[in-house]
Amino acid sequence: MLKDLTITEFLEQTASAEPLPGGGCTAALNAALAASLTEMVTNLTIGRKEFQSVEDEMKKIRKTAADLRKKLQDDIDNDAKAYREVLAAFKLPKNTESEKKQRSSAIQQAFKTAAKVPLGVARDAIKIMDLASRATARGNQNALSDGAVAVLACRAAALAAAYNVKINLGGIKDPDFVEEMTRQIEDLEHQVIEKETECLAQIKI
Amino acid sequence: MLKDLTITEFLEQTASAEPLPGGGCTAALNAALAASLTEMVTNLTIGRKEFQSVEDEMKKIRKTAADLRKKLQDDIDNDAKAYREVLAAFKLPKNTESEKKQRSSAIQQAFKTAAKVPLGVARDAIKIMDLASRATARGNQNALSDGAVAVLACRAAALAAAYNVKINLGGIKDPDFVEEMTRQIEDLEHQVIEKETECLAQIKI
Repeated sequence: MLKDLTITEFLEQTASAEPLPGGGCTAALNAALAASLTEMVTNLTIGRKEFQSVEDEMKKIRKTAADLRKKLQDDIDNDAKAYREVLAAFKLPKNTESEKKQRSSAIQQAFKTAAKVPLGVARDAIKIMDLASRATARGNQNALSDGAVAVLACRAAALAAAYNVKINLGGIKDPDFVEEMTRQIEDLEHQVIEKETECLAQIKI
Repeated sequence: MLKDLTITEFLEQTASAEPLPGGGCTAALNAALAASLTEMVTNLTIGRKEFQSVEDEMKKIRKTAADLRKKLQDDIDNDAKAYREVLAAFKLPKNTESEKKQRSSAIQQAFKTAAKVPLGVARDAIKIMDLASRATARGNQNALSDGAVAVLACRAAALAAAYNVKINLGGIKDPDFVEEMTRQIEDLEHQVIEKETECLAQIKI
């Protein structure tokens, strides 16, 4: 599993001539990093007298961020798996008409999954941006810069995921699916750019 | 060393109530990820007949990106080390006038180092953004989205590093140092925002 590699190994394997891990994995990792930083902001807040009034809210944020982090850790591998399935589908035999049809259908299915994984990452990155912003606004002000970094990582994650959605949509022949996914990802792109500006404007360093 | 942690461990340790690894480490990691993705784009280009005309350029980009990646892997730990030194300086004894003076000087020195590490990360992130953009413009077009993700990660790295420079400058009493560092980091912030727009405009997916 990619999430079991050391940081150095992950960087080295990304750098190699193998296409995996690639940009889609970096996108998921960035969203996971943002979730971790959000958890840290809550952990530096919870249990301190001066933040008692926001303790319950911080615990809720921590729980949601932790759940998203675990999901996104897995998405690092899910993204790689989806790409491997695209490659595997292209290698299916195409000698008979029936084989050709089966291969084409497998390719289409694989591209759809490969587009859906980063769409989910983009959606989760926006959720984490909201959590990071709330935690930073009301939590321990010593962790302001960590909250800001989480917001920046969410934007990178969502826009990176968007590139990965679009590159996979390029291989899909179902126009309704492509149109609907394009609509969704473009909406998420606009959202994340707008939200980042709002969130960072509130963090004064 | 943080770079020897697995991805899962790094995420868990970031999430914990310990302030390290924090946002500064995420900044360095993002710049390192961008360097890796840049190397991947060159590695998917080098040795292919259709890209023979850019082979030498790709090899140069690969070498520079690899050197920066290794430096940035170390910066993940350098950032943590600099922060630990700030904490250690605050814990120095302050019973006598001489101890107070020594402690204050150690704190100032530690904050300066803690500001310089992310300044270097921001500078390197901009270099990597240029490399990623060149590799993507002239290299294997199958890796377009990976190049775009590298550009996005560089912006996140540089702006995240900027927050970490500024938060450390807040503790520094030397006005000339603060002014000069502020000038440098604000210049890098403007550069990276402008460059990102330019680089992404060239990547059509």
